[in-house]
Amino acid sequence: MWFVGARGSVAVTAVAGCAAVTAGLLPPTGMVTETPPFVGSGLPALSSFVFGGHDTAGYPLPKKAESLAAAGVLPHGLPSAVHAELDAADAEIRTGGPLPADPRGDEELIAGFASDIAGFASRCGAARTVVVNVATTEPAPAAGEARLPPSSLYAAAALRAGCPYVNFTPSPGLRHTALRAAARDATVPHAGRDGKTGQTLLRAVLAPMFRQRALDVRAWSGTNLLGGGDGAALADPGAAAAKNAGKNRTLHDTLGSLPEGKVHIDDVPVLGDWKTAWDHIAFDGFLGARMFLQTTWQGCDSALAAPLVLDLARLLARAHQAGITGPLPELGFYFKDPDGGSSALADQYTALLGFAERLREPR
Amino acid sequence: MWFVGARGSVAVTAVAGCAAVTAGLLPPTGMVTETPPFVGSGLPALSSFVFGGHDTAGYPLPKKAESLAAAGVLPHGLPSAVHAELDAADAEIRTGGPLPADPRGDEELIAGFASDIAGFASRCGAARTVVVNVATTEPAPAAGEARLPPSSLYAAAALRAGCPYVNFTPSPGLRHTALRAAARDATVPHAGRDGKTGQTLLRAVLAPMFRQRALDVRAWSGTNLLGGGDGAALADPGAAAAKNAGKNRTLHDTLGSLPEGKVHIDDVPVLGDWKTAWDHIAFDGFLGARMFLQTTWQGCDSALAAPLVLDLARLLARAHQAGITGPLPELGFYFKDPDGGSSALADQYTALLGFAERLREPR
Amino acid sequence: MWFVGARGSVAVTAVAGCAAVTAGLLPPTGMVTETPPFVGSGLPALSSFVFGGHDTAGYPLPKKAESLAAAGVLPHGLPSAVHAELDAADAEIRTGGPLPADPRGDEELIAGFASDIAGFASRCGAARTVVVNVATTEPAPAAGEARLPPSSLYAAAALRAGCPYVNFTPSPGLRHTALRAAARDATVPHAGRDGKTGQTLLRAVLAPMFRQRALDVRAWSGTNLLGGGDGAALADPGAAAAKNAGKNRTLHDTLGSLPEGKVHIDDVPVLGDWKTAWDHIAFDGFLGARMFLQTTWQGCDSALAAPLVLDLARLLARAHQAGITGPLPELGFYFKDPDGGSSALADQYTALLGFAERLREPR
Amino acid sequence: MWFVGARGSVAVTAVAGCAAVTAGLLPPTGMVTETPPFVGSGLPALSSFVFGGHDTAGYPLPKKAESLAAAGVLPHGLPSAVHAELDAADAEIRTGGPLPADPRGDEELIAGFASDIAGFASRCGAARTVVVNVATTEPAPAAGEARLPPSSLYAAAALRAGCPYVNFTPSPGLRHTALRAAARDATVPHAGRDGKTGQTLLRAVLAPMFRQRALDVRAWSGTNLLGGGDGAALADPGAAAAKNAGKNRTLHDTLGSLPEGKVHIDDVPVLGDWKTAWDHIAFDGFLGARMFLQTTWQGCDSALAAPLVLDLARLLARAHQAGITGPLPELGFYFKDPDGGSSALADQYTALLGFAERLREPR
Repeated sequence: MWFVGARGSVAVTAVAGCAAVTAGLLPPTGMVTETPPFVGSGLPALSSFVFGGHDTAGYPLPKKAESLAAAGVLPHGLPSAVHAELDAADAEIRTGGPLPADPRGDEELIAGFASDIAGFASRCGAARTVVVNVATTEPAPAAGEARLPPSSLYAAAALRAGCPYVNFTPSPGLRHTALRAAARDATVPHAGRDGKTGQTLLRAVLAPMFRQRALDVRAWSGTNLLGGGDGAALADPGAAAAKNAGKNRTLHDTLGSLPEGKVHIDDVPVLGDWKTAWDHIAFDGFLGARMFLQTTWQGCDSALAAPLVLDLARLLARAHQAGITGPLPELGFYFKDPDGGSSALADQYTALLGFAERLREPR
Repeated sequence: MWFVGARGSVAVTAVAGCAAVTAGLLPPTGMVTETPPFVGSGLPALSSFVFGGHDTAGYPLPKKAESLAAAGVLPHGLPSAVHAELDAADAEIRTGGPLPADPRGDEELIAGFASDIAGFASRCGAARTVVVNVATTEPAPAAGEARLPPSSLYAAAALRAGCPYVNFTPSPGLRHTALRAAARDATVPHAGRDGKTGQTLLRAVLAPMFRQRALDVRAWSGTNLLGGGDGAALADPGAAAAKNAGKNRTLHDTLGSLPEGKVHIDDVPVLGDWKTAWDHIAFDGFLGARMFLQTTWQGCDSALAAPLVLDLARLLARAHQAGITGPLPELGFYFKDPDGGSSALADQYTALLGFAERLREPR
Repeated sequence: MWFVGARGSVAVTAVAGCAAVTAGLLPPTGMVTETPPFVGSGLPALSSFVFGGHDTAGYPLPKKAESLAAAGVLPHGLPSAVHAELDAADAEIRTGGPLPADPRGDEELIAGFASDIAGFASRCGAARTVVVNVATTEPAPAAGEARLPPSSLYAAAALRAGCPYVNFTPSPGLRHTALRAAARDATVPHAGRDGKTGQTLLRAVLAPMFRQRALDVRAWSGTNLLGGGDGAALADPGAAAAKNAGKNRTLHDTLGSLPEGKVHIDDVPVLGDWKTAWDHIAFDGFLGARMFLQTTWQGCDSALAAPLVLDLARLLARAHQAGITGPLPELGFYFKDPDGGSSALADQYTALLGFAERLREPR
Repeated sequence: MWFVGARGSVAVTAVAGCAAVTAGLLPPTGMVTETPPFVGSGLPALSSFVFGGHDTAGYPLPKKAESLAAAGVLPHGLPSAVHAELDAADAEIRTGGPLPADPRGDEELIAGFASDIAGFASRCGAARTVVVNVATTEPAPAAGEARLPPSSLYAAAALRAGCPYVNFTPSPGLRHTALRAAARDATVPHAGRDGKTGQTLLRAVLAPMFRQRALDVRAWSGTNLLGGGDGAALADPGAAAAKNAGKNRTLHDTLGSLPEGKVHIDDVPVLGDWKTAWDHIAFDGFLGARMFLQTTWQGCDSALAAPLVLDLARLLARAHQAGITGPLPELGFYFKDPDGGSSALADQYTALLGFAERLREPR
């Protein structure tokens, strides 16, 4: 696995967790690909994973892991127990970009990133490398911006290096208009975007419930409180816009129209990696009786995202091996803004099981 | 339709609502059978419905409707707008039983109830009569009680009268051990039990979400606050036991085991027909990170139940017409404790759509 | 009483409610001045009240009352029971301003408003007239705006007419810099601003609790969902700014500094006059243990505001009679942004009781 | 300090926390006696504290502290940083009782306990020893039980040893009828009972708010989820009864009558020392408008209790020094079921400040 954002909370949790599960220290809670329906799908073993990635930050991975343990994201003692694996991944992290006042143009950056990835693949002798974007959400591009945003540079580099690509963030990545043709004609499988880990996960089961019961949702309001880098990034209205589009898509697709109500994303630094999402739903029942549902979701963002990121790397690796190419709407289960398919989680789960079945076929 | 508990809130809301929807005064919100997938299934039109039933209470239906309007369950003005239909149903209500010190034995009661139903069918010239139990939940029978509880007397009467039967309550009805053979060999279709209108509806979508995401649910606690007759009835631990069994069944079937936590049902008379259910779910994610989901559902019980009761009457009537007999696990969508099938709402909805398809076949 | 915003929900609820309580139809729930500590303070009887006011809207009061009853704010049947009192108030409503393209200057408007108030006082023969602003919150003035906002025109008119004045809204009113000297030197009592009816009321008891227990509040976030005119007005960031300043003042004054977190005010039209406020408080206890408190307040804005508005009119009238002039920090109990004093509700209540005692003295 | 229940979570958190604060490792968050109003009251310094106590369990204190750190109650690293202080306290813990099949009678037990306390006082050379009960809540005594419950044996021992006594639990302690005269005539100060750390703390500020605003509370329902030993102990209806009596007292005293609604205490072992309390309040406003407030309190029981226990030890020690004897209603701020005084937190805080003032007087 090659992480874009390799020193971030999600990547470090994935690296540490993969090592912990491989060593039998902890169960693979939250990893869907470790459940019975995926037995026999030919997914690569967790023990076969090697990690590297790009990042613009420079602190060492073990130190980041310690700070995640202090925050309760990782169990105490885990960073030292998997110190060797963290060190190994740390040695395979390359400086990303573009850095401030970086003289390189887009093409030069893409080539450099692709070369970093290829070097990693060559050094570790992996059969294939899956590139996964877990970097902080980008601000929206300025109007008339001619250059590609970083997430799209990395996405282009993944394609150039012949690697399957996953965009777990709301940043454009492979969805940038300049990459549309490349994405469509890709000879590797790719999937995105914006991992579904909290409020939208809930909406993907609650909205279908209201529709199936023919209840009339009148307003759906939400507030997200989160710290960490993501809280600060998403407090930027431009960055939040992409994320909220994904959230609203779930409601609109399922309910047929968008009810009243807004979604707020607040930066609350003291919450760190912990995220609280409150949803308030006003709906009408028979003869217009007004009713309400409220939900409060208190989750740890990295602990929710990391196992899904490992799932996706396994699924994309196997898909690549099986010769599957292009976008994978069958993986909508994982995303707020998938490449197509139903917005209802139950349908998405059925599609995922079908995909597991498809991977099972001998090739 | 023949209601057991014909003067109760659910029945009166169904009668008033059926008239209001038929007259075009209000949309059929909450009626699943009025949604597109049911077009062409041959369900009887709402305008063709005639209502009667048993009850031990004596107040007139229009008066009950006025009290429901004062409580905000029915829109103001509706009781007077549908006064004629309420009066017509009122005229077809017969005294139920057994009343205190009733000298009649079980057989005599069953025969009397069956005769009441047959008389109604004959008077109104309906092609068929669906008997629906919406009476207050019964207390648990005393140990060694030899007589049938009222709900089972009515259920037996429905079978004897050759009528499809629905048990929308947690009372035993056709599930009583003494009626097991009769239920199995019934020449009419029947369905039950305990309508799924709030907390368990939510659990039927949330529990599958946790399972599909491989999250480890450690504790699921719940408190229900409700007034009306149901609050008082369910404050009785015996009566609550049947209801809680249904709620726990959903969790156990979906999660594979029952997590820690209890369910409370509190009688809070000032809430009247309005019900508040709080659920608190403690779950573990990747590497054991502890997270929480809380839900608060504020619903109007009768407004949630009445459209489902009308749905069921239509589905059972059509099934009867189509020659379908015995228990209908395909209707698990409507029940806490169905006659079989998955406990996940999405699966239950799929099964319901399959049933609608089956009814569509010409016979 | 002379209402600025006389056709709005708060004013109409106050008029209808005053009549209902006077007639003994309903108890004076929510009126603090009807509780034992105020006996003997010489407050004017509710039965002595006469109502008039300014408004720019034209629909009749009885019609507005019917719409409030349909929305569940007023009990059904009340509008017709107090039809005469609504009609009487309706006849005393004058067109406010400035209307679009109004040719009148500020001075002319103030003189006109003062003349309207004086005419009312003369016609109804009241000993005194209390002017109360319950109009929709104004947008923030444009930079460099030379003219007075409407709320300040009405406030100036009240002073000119020699009337006690209350500003129950976040609009500037008598707080406008151009009126500073007039407010300070007023020969009538006045009070403001921004009635404390929901989220801030809670904060005024919860923030002192945290402080008294030496718990360290790290973040206090809030979301308000409301419809009605107020939701739309406060969705304007400028209008919301004044309101949020009041909310934050309570936290800052009590906690000594402002914790992390934002307050959102969302316009959700389908909620009508009903308001939902969610607060999420992250605090640290002994040895840094992180804990949380969440509150959800579901209230009816007009039903919360109207009894307080009647309280204030009585208190200001009695203060005027007693020769008390200028701002009344003793009434901080009622306001988000009072004229001074503690921000803790318990202290404000003590100050209010002291004021009641002061009014008790014979003069 | 002499703890009854010296190996429990509260005691160990107090010992570790006192050491941490004394060493300047952490601020004294949650300790009310460390706030400005208590400067100059002559309270003993935290650095002067020495700890011992009774317990029937045998695991060592440092081990218990490690398990509290693993559960997130104590910061990681703290147990080793204060290992010496934990060891010192451990050495002063004596076996409590009565153990199963203990042959000793009540008098013999009391004498033994008093002798343990006196020995501790003599060894550590403390000017005085405050005995604080923080043991698990006792089950209700069987009818006709002639012997004293353990909490009362310890309380009697404290009096016999001439020590100030605090009962931080709902157990009878000094409130047992057999100790009534002893408590009244005690020549030492004593305080209780049942520390106010969560739901009741909230109720002590919310109930006065409703009363001061003349709002009509119709129902107040609550559910507590907690693990640890306390969850199991309070799942026993008898043990819960005393606790609930304290909770209801707050509502009854403040509101004038007890509204509808129940309080549940559920044992949810996976929550460990973390406690979640949900309250649902239905209240009526002006003209009968029905409104709701819900609160969810997620706290760490030991982190809430330990600083209050240290507060109480300091206050009782100083009171003893100042010659104050008997029950201390001025400390109602700390208790669910105090020895008298108002049930409103604001009044209780005022009384506490008055007590601090009284202690300030030179003696």
